[in-house]
Amino acid sequence: MSGQLIPSQFLDDQLAAPVPAPVEPPVFSLHRGGKMEVRATVPLRDRADLSLAYTPGVAEICTAIAERPELAMDYTWKSNTVAVVTDGTAVLGLGDIGPLAALPVMEGKAVLFKQFGGVDAVPVCLDCTDVDALVETVARLAPGFGGINLEDISAPRCFEVERRLQERLDIPVFHDDQHGTAIVLLAALRNAAEVVGRELSTLRAVISGAGAAGVAIAKILLDAGIGDLTVVDSKGIVATGRPDLEHSPVKTELAALTNRAGLTGGLAEAMRGADVFIGVSSGTVPEEIVATMAPNAIIAAMANPNPEIHPDVARKYAAVVATGRSDFPNQINNVLAFPGVFAGALSVRASRITEGMKLAAAEALANVVAGELSADQVIPSPFDERVAPAVTAAVADAARRDGVARL
Amino acid sequence: MSGQLIPSQFLDDQLAAPVPAPVEPPVFSLHRGGKMEVRATVPLRDRADLSLAYTPGVAEICTAIAERPELAMDYTWKSNTVAVVTDGTAVLGLGDIGPLAALPVMEGKAVLFKQFGGVDAVPVCLDCTDVDALVETVARLAPGFGGINLEDISAPRCFEVERRLQERLDIPVFHDDQHGTAIVLLAALRNAAEVVGRELSTLRAVISGAGAAGVAIAKILLDAGIGDLTVVDSKGIVATGRPDLEHSPVKTELAALTNRAGLTGGLAEAMRGADVFIGVSSGTVPEEIVATMAPNAIIAAMANPNPEIHPDVARKYAAVVATGRSDFPNQINNVLAFPGVFAGALSVRASRITEGMKLAAAEALANVVAGELSADQVIPSPFDERVAPAVTAAVADAARRDGVARL
Repeated sequence: MSGQLIPSQFLDDQLAAPVPAPVEPPVFSLHRGGKMEVRATVPLRDRADLSLAYTPGVAEICTAIAERPELAMDYTWKSNTVAVVTDGTAVLGLGDIGPLAALPVMEGKAVLFKQFGGVDAVPVCLDCTDVDALVETVARLAPGFGGINLEDISAPRCFEVERRLQERLDIPVFHDDQHGTAIVLLAALRNAAEVVGRELSTLRAVISGAGAAGVAIAKILLDAGIGDLTVVDSKGIVATGRPDLEHSPVKTELAALTNRAGLTGGLAEAMRGADVFIGVSSGTVPEEIVATMAPNAIIAAMANPNPEIHPDVARKYAAVVATGRSDFPNQINNVLAFPGVFAGALSVRASRITEGMKLAAAEALANVVAGELSADQVIPSPFDERVAPAVTAAVADAARRDGVARL
Repeated sequence: MSGQLIPSQFLDDQLAAPVPAPVEPPVFSLHRGGKMEVRATVPLRDRADLSLAYTPGVAEICTAIAERPELAMDYTWKSNTVAVVTDGTAVLGLGDIGPLAALPVMEGKAVLFKQFGGVDAVPVCLDCTDVDALVETVARLAPGFGGINLEDISAPRCFEVERRLQERLDIPVFHDDQHGTAIVLLAALRNAAEVVGRELSTLRAVISGAGAAGVAIAKILLDAGIGDLTVVDSKGIVATGRPDLEHSPVKTELAALTNRAGLTGGLAEAMRGADVFIGVSSGTVPEEIVATMAPNAIIAAMANPNPEIHPDVARKYAAVVATGRSDFPNQINNVLAFPGVFAGALSVRASRITEGMKLAAAEALANVVAGELSADQVIPSPFDERVAPAVTAAVADAARRDGVARL
């Protein structure tokens, strides 16, 4: 991938500082100086302004919060602010490139939070990868934020980091690579099932990949009542009794909850007769295996930039095809979920993001295009302005139902 | 102080939720929802925009930074972004109110950074007070920032936190309560000396208070060539041989460098015949002691909200009087220094803020009003638009001279 993407000659030329400099590619020009800024929302024109926003006036606010900590949600930016936290270990498809090189992605995420959800988000790139260190560090910096969005932290550490942080903090902790993907996938699958005239409860699905996204998709599909589900990782079907699972509590749990059909073997065995394929790995699936799926199959091949099954191939065997790419129909794009999920959670000061809130987000997202469904539109466009308000409202309602709202 | 400041009845009434609600005081209204936001500086209107600012385009930037980490300064917001870090242990005059209650001050600081220096600043309120924990936590979150502004961390921990962080990081670490105050005080003192027709090298100064600000002021005055200097803390004159100093390396160093006159005793003994009084404590100085200062004395009584010597009293004995308050002439306000200091350091990608950069900041700040000096104007107004550009340029030049600039 890196060979395709790095304009190394441009960088070499630039650092060699020839005159005239080579023309900077547009993506580099766009990123000069970064993609975001901080702005005051209060006037700072004169001494009177300063004496309210800063000393001496600000002391009244500090004293009030010291006496009643819950007032921080009224009188600071905390109530609308999320830390976008990474350790840089699983950045896009690039892998472990470290916290500094992850910063452009975190900035991008932060501006999407604002653009699509009205949420203020701050990149936090951490120079540590140990689970204890990550948990401790995020817990220490949490007071200034209303939520924690974990991002691009590699599996299986991401599961424990999220769980332990949520146990410790009274603000939402949400690993978007897991749950954002799972929410959007579920929404797409609900609508795809509608298009092919099936109920979710009658479908047998295969998930290829048991990393952050695969595990979260498995859980949300089970919660949503999928008929049956088989997860396949690099060693084959995740099934009870597989010797290597003893080292993986997460996959052991998955094995217990999935594969009721009792399949054994690998991807070929799993996909034979399956109704749904969900790809969240980096491999490719041979066409002869795709050909063994059930009629009217649904394929969501989300590997980026190269889907596990190219859409042109997938369309030959499936009734509905989705990918992670913007240049094909039905893009499974996390931006459809995370802005509204956090906006909804923050709007009611939720203490966590429950399974019910995730399911509600998926349902609301699916419903946005319920009246306009077709094989090429099972999920809204990221620029559909109905999306964020619908997800926000549904998540807020679900938070109240689940008893985690504080407003 | 808290008795003066908390409108407790307002809060009680508000939480009791009567209808109609009581009128919210203006300072509370202003703080509703906080004082700052995050904004995108790039367009995000359509798929083409998204594919540059986020995936897939952003991967090119990540890959480039992974190969050449220094490129993060070109292609992210790091180069212009400062973390405003506190543990909430010494907030304004309120003391140890904790990280959450400190957030309004950090937000205020952040918006001043932007308003006066064009620097993007992010509040980071840490839920830990141990020196090791503070150093480790800030070092871990440092990759995403171009500088660290430490704020309202109590002495003596603040000295070690700053020193160890600066040893560890290659970006500027600056404890504003120390150096911001010291820079502005030095600038005022330079001009005050001019007003009374004296050289800095002939003045004997007394500093009341050996906390963060007192120690930093002592150091910068020595670097600037003050004639003699006596520091007084709650136990009297800081002098070699004082038994309690063995537990304080910072005060032991101060004792070795100051009090060449060999004075013993307390504030009364120190101030007799002194040319300059600098107050950075919370005590008050009796008028009969003020009366013993040398003719044409200079008084900077910076305790807030109650100066150690009220300006009306100070004026009876001193030729120039400064305070920390905006409602008297000559306000020693840190906002005159920190925005320009960081703007200058960031503009040349300085790896640290040297003593030379601090002295240059003070000189530039003093020079802004050099042609307009009077007893009531030894320092510019915070709203003087000449200040930040002058300080920025001087700090950048000094960074180059001192060999810490990387641009």
